[in-house]
Amino acid sequence: MAHTIAVLAGDGIGPEVMAEAIKVLDAVQQKFGFALEYTHADVGGIAIDNHGEALPASTLAVCEASEAILFGSVGGPKWESLPPAQQPERAALLPLRKHFDLFCNLRPAKVFKALAAACPLRADIVGDGFDVLVVRELTSGIYFGQPKGREGSGPDERAWDTKIYKRSEIERIARMAFEASRLRRKKVTSVDKANVLTCMVFWREVVKEVAKEFPDVELSHIYIDNATMQLVRDPHQFDVMLCGNMFGDIISDEAAMLTGSMGMLASASLNSSKFGLFEPAGGSAPDIAGQGIANPIAQILSAAMLLKYSLGQDQAAAAIEAAVSAILDKKIMTRDIATPGVTPVSTSAMGDAIVAEI
Amino acid sequence: MAHTIAVLAGDGIGPEVMAEAIKVLDAVQQKFGFALEYTHADVGGIAIDNHGEALPASTLAVCEASEAILFGSVGGPKWESLPPAQQPERAALLPLRKHFDLFCNLRPAKVFKALAAACPLRADIVGDGFDVLVVRELTSGIYFGQPKGREGSGPDERAWDTKIYKRSEIERIARMAFEASRLRRKKVTSVDKANVLTCMVFWREVVKEVAKEFPDVELSHIYIDNATMQLVRDPHQFDVMLCGNMFGDIISDEAAMLTGSMGMLASASLNSSKFGLFEPAGGSAPDIAGQGIANPIAQILSAAMLLKYSLGQDQAAAAIEAAVSAILDKKIMTRDIATPGVTPVSTSAMGDAIVAEI
Ligand SMILES: CC(C)[C@H](C(=O)O)[C@@H](O)C(=O)O
Ligand SMILES: CC(C)[C@H](C(=O)O)[C@@H](O)C(=O)O
Repeated sequence: MAHTIAVLAGDGIGPEVMAEAIKVLDAVQQKFGFALEYTHADVGGIAIDNHGEALPASTLAVCEASEAILFGSVGGPKWESLPPAQQPERAALLPLRKHFDLFCNLRPAKVFKALAAACPLRADIVGDGFDVLVVRELTSGIYFGQPKGREGSGPDERAWDTKIYKRSEIERIARMAFEASRLRRKKVTSVDKANVLTCMVFWREVVKEVAKEFPDVELSHIYIDNATMQLVRDPHQFDVMLCGNMFGDIISDEAAMLTGSMGMLASASLNSSKFGLFEPAGGSAPDIAGQGIANPIAQILSAAMLLKYSLGQDQAAAAIEAAVSAILDKKIMTRDIATPGVTPVSTSAMGDAIVAEI
Repeated sequence: MAHTIAVLAGDGIGPEVMAEAIKVLDAVQQKFGFALEYTHADVGGIAIDNHGEALPASTLAVCEASEAILFGSVGGPKWESLPPAQQPERAALLPLRKHFDLFCNLRPAKVFKALAAACPLRADIVGDGFDVLVVRELTSGIYFGQPKGREGSGPDERAWDTKIYKRSEIERIARMAFEASRLRRKKVTSVDKANVLTCMVFWREVVKEVAKEFPDVELSHIYIDNATMQLVRDPHQFDVMLCGNMFGDIISDEAAMLTGSMGMLASASLNSSKFGLFEPAGGSAPDIAGQGIANPIAQILSAAMLLKYSLGQDQAAAAIEAAVSAILDKKIMTRDIATPGVTPVSTSAMGDAIVAEI
């Protein structure tokens, strides 16, 4: 029976890079003997245009009928005049995360050796590349905490949000981080602000308790402000960084940018039944949309994460990752990552090259 | 009549670098014809040891009787086993900020030309150095918002904090940012998370209103996650970054580390009556305390900020800043900033050199 995938390409470069990801998925399903069935649906700006909302009920229904969501990227200048809280990205992603209880966000930030020179950090800091996995809690914290509100008028008018965590929410994301670290370097750094926030004192306490179930993993704690500094000073010191929703938003973006490989980074948002949403770390890049020059690798690696985490097709996922490494070694590069002397290839040529490699 | 200064040297390298700052203050008071009267008091770890609390009433009384506070740095391994919320830094600084209503935190993050090579960013990104001023709201937001609490038990046990801003609080810090930008490049970037947080929607709205009073200043808005990325990608794009308490904590530390000149960065925390607390951006560096090798420049530049902001002695402040630049050009450098081929000088030799230059 075919695995069902909801394909939400979105705006900007979304549709272009998604086409390449589908090519690659088609190639691995033949090679590894499984079948995928794609259902396309609108999301983000295009959904606002076609259906009046960023996440229409029809799209949600497609997602519900699928085993996983392959997400492109959303937003662009056309919708920039909407109020911040109605921006396509926010209005599509937040309800999807909450609806499917996608509490576990995995954001790998790694330097690809062939691209180390693009890293914004000094070469002696980058060394032969670093590899950090940010594990971010995605369905609680200040993003969703109640109450939120606004009241009063004049100088006393005020607005507020509540940063709140329950023990069970901290436990489940902490376990994901410890488990993930076991497949890596067995080090978890929990990011908090326990010197100031009551909620983060609790966070630290619960993470320490969960750590007892993982005596083989080394746990340390760092304040968010220090974490942003240490990432810059020496990213090699981190293996898995465990964060709440807001701090994870910040740390994962900083770490992603520090790699210099933004067009290469995938992410996964999972619930406890292996259902997940998989998307590139970068944005919809409207400035280069439609030119056929966008880098599809982040989308292709997101598809690989989907195969691994939602469909259990580890071999197919590994084959895609290996193919990506191989084409980089062969200096097949899109414009954004082309090293000096390399003639950039198009989006579709990149997809073809990866397919050929598989 | 003499100006009164509360001198809170604190722990670690605090007392060593403070001694040099006092030397420099003594030199400028002679030269510029004003008098300073210092009152020393314990703060931080040493205050916990001597008085049982990080901010004893006697120290607070000294501060109250003074026109400004020159603060060293606090904390160290001796007090690390205290719970995070009782750490010397937190337990000294937060009550001081609140007590004196020090709502306006100025954190300059600039690359000193002579030290550009120490910047962790690639040389082509650093260029001839960048210069960002973080203006951080310091007495409200999630740091002080009520309610904070913890309740329940078992998996539902939970803890929370409230991120809250009043219109008047946003207005006064926004005005400080716009005014500061007028002495610089007239660009303010307000950092928020208006796509997710109700409080930050309000923040953005009020900042926009205040901007109308400053038509000559260019205002833009950026989400905190993007801000941490853009700082890495191209710090030159920023002039003044206006932040709430929590985001300012994060952004100012990231920006400070990106300069590579951590031992050189001062900060000011001001209220609306020119009273202020002035302290280095770096920490108490217990690993090098007592060796006479710490860099006193951050403390000396904090003293310069004190002269400028609390005592209105702009000329004396400028003289100190010029002296610091001059000695760097003469390659007089402590160990932390010594460029290749330079023999590092001691903490006190650095202080002497700056005094000689004045
Ligand atoms: C679009 C926005 C709501 C979202 C977030 O803050 O989580 C984005 O920044 C992300 O990190 O996926
Ligand atoms: C010590 C701590 C409470 C403090 C803060 O978070 O404000 C510190 O990190 C700072 O930035 O001055």
